[in-house]
Amino acid sequence: MGQGHTAPLYTVVAEGSITTPKGFTAGGIHCGLKKTTRNDLGAIVCEVPAAAAGVYTTNVFQAAPLKVTRESIGEGGRLRAVLVNSGNANACTGEQGEADAYEMRNKFAERVGIAADEVAVASTGVIGELLKMDKVRSGISELPAKLASDKQAAESFCQAILTTDLVQKMVCVSVEIDGQLIHIAGAAKGSGMIHPNMATMLGFVTTDAEIGSEALQQLLREATNHTFNMITVDGDTSTNDMLVAMASGLAGNSELNPQHEGWAAFGAALRHVCEVLAKAIARDGEGATKLVEVQVRGAVSDASAQAIAKTVIGSSLVKSAVFGADANWGRIIAAVGRAGEPVNPDTVDISLGSIVTLQQSRPVAFDEEKALEYLKGDTVVIHVDLHMEEGAATAWGCDLTYDYVRINAAYRT
Amino acid sequence: MGQGHTAPLYTVVAEGSITTPKGFTAGGIHCGLKKTTRNDLGAIVCEVPAAAAGVYTTNVFQAAPLKVTRESIGEGGRLRAVLVNSGNANACTGEQGEADAYEMRNKFAERVGIAADEVAVASTGVIGELLKMDKVRSGISELPAKLASDKQAAESFCQAILTTDLVQKMVCVSVEIDGQLIHIAGAAKGSGMIHPNMATMLGFVTTDAEIGSEALQQLLREATNHTFNMITVDGDTSTNDMLVAMASGLAGNSELNPQHEGWAAFGAALRHVCEVLAKAIARDGEGATKLVEVQVRGAVSDASAQAIAKTVIGSSLVKSAVFGADANWGRIIAAVGRAGEPVNPDTVDISLGSIVTLQQSRPVAFDEEKALEYLKGDTVVIHVDLHMEEGAATAWGCDLTYDYVRINAAYRT
Repeated sequence: MGQGHTAPLYTVVAEGSITTPKGFTAGGIHCGLKKTTRNDLGAIVCEVPAAAAGVYTTNVFQAAPLKVTRESIGEGGRLRAVLVNSGNANACTGEQGEADAYEMRNKFAERVGIAADEVAVASTGVIGELLKMDKVRSGISELPAKLASDKQAAESFCQAILTTDLVQKMVCVSVEIDGQLIHIAGAAKGSGMIHPNMATMLGFVTTDAEIGSEALQQLLREATNHTFNMITVDGDTSTNDMLVAMASGLAGNSELNPQHEGWAAFGAALRHVCEVLAKAIARDGEGATKLVEVQVRGAVSDASAQAIAKTVIGSSLVKSAVFGADANWGRIIAAVGRAGEPVNPDTVDISLGSIVTLQQSRPVAFDEEKALEYLKGDTVVIHVDLHMEEGAATAWGCDLTYDYVRINAAYRT
Repeated sequence: MGQGHTAPLYTVVAEGSITTPKGFTAGGIHCGLKKTTRNDLGAIVCEVPAAAAGVYTTNVFQAAPLKVTRESIGEGGRLRAVLVNSGNANACTGEQGEADAYEMRNKFAERVGIAADEVAVASTGVIGELLKMDKVRSGISELPAKLASDKQAAESFCQAILTTDLVQKMVCVSVEIDGQLIHIAGAAKGSGMIHPNMATMLGFVTTDAEIGSEALQQLLREATNHTFNMITVDGDTSTNDMLVAMASGLAGNSELNPQHEGWAAFGAALRHVCEVLAKAIARDGEGATKLVEVQVRGAVSDASAQAIAKTVIGSSLVKSAVFGADANWGRIIAAVGRAGEPVNPDTVDISLGSIVTLQQSRPVAFDEEKALEYLKGDTVVIHVDLHMEEGAATAWGCDLTYDYVRINAAYRT
């Protein structure tokens, strides 16, 4: 299997897309939900019933499509398709919103000739407004003809799920298991729940690996906890966050399970797909000029390190200092100290990239010019070492900028 | 006692100050810790040993003065004086910083002829730099001559504790107990830990009521939980936050305790003093253009209501929407839903002032012009009713503005 410590577990496929894994087609069109001419309705379809898994927002207020998708995946853990619209989140829309989400699912299933409970639906956009179902209906009848397995079709799907995003977010990796080349690909949208009334993050993963839905759910949950759950743009969790994975099983490997020798490699590849998409979302945060990564080590546990990393990455003070290229370790240590986690106040090291600013909780003289140069880059890594136990975690976010305020202070109209 | 439900429990004394309560003098001077000519060293002195109580930052990293002040108040719960400097927080300064804090305490005690453990010390300003003790020493020998009981002297103390504050924060109320007119006054500084390397909030309460230090500690803690602990400017907790109360006992009332018929009135008056100061800090938040108040009711408990109110007031989305005068209820309900507290997703009402925007978790059509007019005011009240139990709480904060980013992106130098 070539899984020596030196051999890579997986390979990034630069030209890959969500339709690279065997069995998947995708596409997107403009049906009229967005005021612009950007695509606003897209779908991924699998030629066989795919093992499916889903992770959903923890927000108490959950949009109608989440209920429908949970129900579809719940029925035997199989999906043939996912239908997504942007421009309207179908959230806080009551019974009519639920009826509309079911109609989206059922009409699309009928149109492509599969069972209703084999279709997942997702929506992103304005909260509190009913879907223009006439547009959705005509879109549903038009969309299937546009589904294809080439990269262009995959990109038209990616465009269809974007709201305030500035860039498309797609990645594909390959991993060899049982002598077979397996592909895992993902597409996502989101730049934080930071546009007026916009609901945030959607992610879709396709793979041709043979794996059961429960095993896929386990790996998707683990990957999410270390990737999508470790990014923050403004700390706000939307009502529509959803990550759905589909495995066609057409790659020809024997079914993956925790005993399978390819399990670790597949898990690492899946996690990489999720990490690339998560970091892309953080970097694309509204108004962001750079990606910020916070690495915490030496905590009493990984969970403790995660809590500290998220407190630092979420600090408006730290975020503004990074925007201003200010090597302001005082704000970082203050954030570490208020995370509510065990910290030894005398043993904390803080570095910005390779520039040490605090050692054993005492200020270290550093070259401000060098720090300024580093902080002006498009990626800033903050290292925090608590020197207690082995707990470690990484979180990603972005800087807080004038544009963030400008965009979010703007009237919805 | 005239404490009928219609009679006020206390009266605001517009012309009062921290030296209005019997037995207190105060003063402030410029000793050279600040680059400007603003006062940077101040003291409050009581002519008798005053019952004392203190509340301190929960941050793991605590500045040296906090250790010294805890120690002083710990010795018998009495204080004769509090000495405060601004311009330097004496935080993250190691053993030298601790030695400096002790020297401040001891030199001032010696100079005014009281015991060292009758003096509390507080510092606010830059983190990670050692105090210029030569300036502090000369200031300590000069300060006592400036102590007086008039309002001007009290104001010179207020100036001496300010850092980035735009306005002084002082309040005085009176309450009649045992036929005696009792005064409670307070002074505070702070606009959130939102200036480069500045440490935040200091509060000082003086009263001439006769009350034991344990009873005072109990009331101070209760008042803090509903006032200073319910404000947020940017969610960051500083290393220097400190609130100290001193009761001279010269008003002539019989000692206050929970059985005393004046207990409730004194507690209400003390809480009002803390609330006025807390709201003043929130309104003075760096870059803030208005005070935001979030009132949550109908929660399963007061603690749950507090958690929800603080999540909403801390949301960058909500804060930017208020800055933009955008009646963006979608962000408010999203914040309520992610607070991690019990919420019924179908029974939430949200109003902005008197403008109902959400009822039973469904959007309500409202007059955008009227909402815009209201949100343009200098105080915005957000009402959230969960319609579950009787839990209620109020939190205060400010809007997120361009100036917040400008100020906090600026280089420390």
